[in-house]
Amino acid sequence: MKAEIITIGDELLIGQVIDTNSAWLGQQLSSLGITLYQRTACGDSREQILSCLHDASLRSDIIIITGGLGPTKDDITKKTLCEYFDTTLVTDDKVLEWVTKIFRMRKMPMLDINLQQAMIPANSKTLWNRSGTAPGMWFDINNKIYISLPGVPFEMKVIFEEEAVPLLKQKFELPYIYHRTLQTCSIGESFLANKIKDIEENLPSYIKLAYLPSVGAVRLRLSAYGNNKEQLETEVAQICNQFYERIGEYIYGEGNDSLNEVIGVLLKGKNKTMATAESCTGGFIAHQITSIAGSSKYYKGSIVSYDNSIKQLELNVSDEILKTVGAVSEACVKQMANEVLKKFDVDYAIATSGIAGPDGGTDEKPVGTVWIAIANKNEVIAQKFNMGDNRERTILRTCLMSLDMLRKMLLQEN
Amino acid sequence: MKAEIITIGDELLIGQVIDTNSAWLGQQLSSLGITLYQRTACGDSREQILSCLHDASLRSDIIIITGGLGPTKDDITKKTLCEYFDTTLVTDDKVLEWVTKIFRMRKMPMLDINLQQAMIPANSKTLWNRSGTAPGMWFDINNKIYISLPGVPFEMKVIFEEEAVPLLKQKFELPYIYHRTLQTCSIGESFLANKIKDIEENLPSYIKLAYLPSVGAVRLRLSAYGNNKEQLETEVAQICNQFYERIGEYIYGEGNDSLNEVIGVLLKGKNKTMATAESCTGGFIAHQITSIAGSSKYYKGSIVSYDNSIKQLELNVSDEILKTVGAVSEACVKQMANEVLKKFDVDYAIATSGIAGPDGGTDEKPVGTVWIAIANKNEVIAQKFNMGDNRERTILRTCLMSLDMLRKMLLQEN
Repeated sequence: MKAEIITIGDELLIGQVIDTNSAWLGQQLSSLGITLYQRTACGDSREQILSCLHDASLRSDIIIITGGLGPTKDDITKKTLCEYFDTTLVTDDKVLEWVTKIFRMRKMPMLDINLQQAMIPANSKTLWNRSGTAPGMWFDINNKIYISLPGVPFEMKVIFEEEAVPLLKQKFELPYIYHRTLQTCSIGESFLANKIKDIEENLPSYIKLAYLPSVGAVRLRLSAYGNNKEQLETEVAQICNQFYERIGEYIYGEGNDSLNEVIGVLLKGKNKTMATAESCTGGFIAHQITSIAGSSKYYKGSIVSYDNSIKQLELNVSDEILKTVGAVSEACVKQMANEVLKKFDVDYAIATSGIAGPDGGTDEKPVGTVWIAIANKNEVIAQKFNMGDNRERTILRTCLMSLDMLRKMLLQEN
Repeated sequence: MKAEIITIGDELLIGQVIDTNSAWLGQQLSSLGITLYQRTACGDSREQILSCLHDASLRSDIIIITGGLGPTKDDITKKTLCEYFDTTLVTDDKVLEWVTKIFRMRKMPMLDINLQQAMIPANSKTLWNRSGTAPGMWFDINNKIYISLPGVPFEMKVIFEEEAVPLLKQKFELPYIYHRTLQTCSIGESFLANKIKDIEENLPSYIKLAYLPSVGAVRLRLSAYGNNKEQLETEVAQICNQFYERIGEYIYGEGNDSLNEVIGVLLKGKNKTMATAESCTGGFIAHQITSIAGSSKYYKGSIVSYDNSIKQLELNVSDEILKTVGAVSEACVKQMANEVLKKFDVDYAIATSGIAGPDGGTDEKPVGTVWIAIANKNEVIAQKFNMGDNRERTILRTCLMSLDMLRKMLLQEN
């Protein structure tokens, strides 16, 4: 079962709007066992819409069209669909009643263009929009399904879930696709690939592995295609077990887990607290941790000691350290971590100090040099990294590496 | 001049990644005077890539391909381009040297698959990637341009801006479009539109105004189309002057200015320093300020007092304040701002305290309630906001509002 998405709107092409609808629809289709084969974005132009519809219908069984259903002049999807299917618009009385009611409730006068919202092509079935004035439409033509949805994300979602999905399940006997994603960090894509080369090469043809890299992290996604749900899930679980055995130390979570969430779960499970002392990361680790709702349960706070005077004042970093080995040193981050641990009375602490750049590098300590320390009440460990010469990525990587170091410390204690 | 984008990757189709590259490229093309005609996303499949390339070449002059250039097996763009153009891969010695150097710097061994990163199709020109190991490629075939870029956003952006744009300008005589963007914040889109309604209505037909809203901010982009560069720039300048007169207090910058940069420029100009004391923003303001290179010149650091015990310990917030009016109060943020100003010995301080949610709201202080204080050596001002019920947006809005309050204080003193 192959599907395509056609998103309509000039605003998508000139980059005024980021198309989040397609990603959401892709996830829904994939979980329904429908393969999203292609996705096309085109402008508010009759010719383009017609040509996209034509091309998509040659390739796919289900064509989902979003956008262009508003009341204004540039919204031409409905009339173009009429042209494509050689039909005309007719009023849907129930929708008309609904639209009239909405305008009455909002105490706004109905304009002629609003009346048109209640019209749908004669050969289509209305998909009810309980969140807005533009109904969706379902066309079943020559055994191909065309679904037209508004572009406003929450209207599109409600109509798709509540109206289109039941009809799709009724119409097609859907196959099953099972996805499972492992989240890794602290290892590069090619190293990872090398470590699991033989497992990858021995995958059956109906199970595919994808590497999804981002800064400092790589997701491994297994996709299994077939009909026997249980068997696929078992097979994927066996492969995942092989991955855990081989590269388990790099796997910090699954699905949409993030490192900061994982840290939170571990800390809450142990009923422990933490704090941070940040120099080069400048508050980014604190931000990442506190972006998780409920982090106040385990996170007490941070000393962002960007200036060396604050390292001395707040974290008791000695003149001697700053003068001999400097702020970007093992001695400095260890002192920072130990001090914030004690001062904030927490169980774990992260400290960072480095040269994010672009200035401040030396031969001995080039831009990208970062020291990270992790402390608990018994020990403090520190590690040196070179994070490269991009400021933004150095901050991001330092955050990930320090959270991963903390994760490992938390796990080792189990 | 028509362009298309083909984004390659299964992860885009199953919705694991939201395609932000296309929106960014759309903006760049539009500012170059190139029309983005269509955008297609397809899977990591040879047949699909070949068919997308074929179709796009029938419609457009410039075809930009992103993704599928990584070192692993599922990255097949390069070899598929070779098949499409009937050519083979050859090693680019300069790229090889560069890739080797990167691996040496990162102290990582070079694998066979990494060597392949340095290979490009024999009929292409290398687009240098100074941010990573995968080079971009430029093909000029039958007067159509094909540009292949990595899918990693920052690598894609650097290569496009630094390598592809100059070649595009050399190859095509591009029409002239003059853009000027004013950055506003602390005012909603419809209020802004209402204030400048008459100016907008009197714009000549060849000058267009676009509202580009994001959380807490609205960009106003004027685009002027024509041939007389000087005249267009003068006319746009006149319109901008009208905007400055009418809504100047909301305009914090132009072009790609960000509030944190603007604050930095103002502080450096006055040779002044600042610090922050953050509760609900949890280090995000510190992060925003320190994301600017050179911020160590004016930013000393932050106390992230997420837990009330840290507010007491580090910022001398009294038991009485916490027990009577609570941490989310005027008294608390004023004390936080004054204390960090004194303690860190700086000229300006920002303090925030609020309920980011989803939990912790009460009837009196619902989720989204935020107090912000701005202090200098003579005064401390505080303001209460309701930022709404989305945690992420509350943190972002609080950051923008507090930076804007500081901006206004810095300007008033001039």
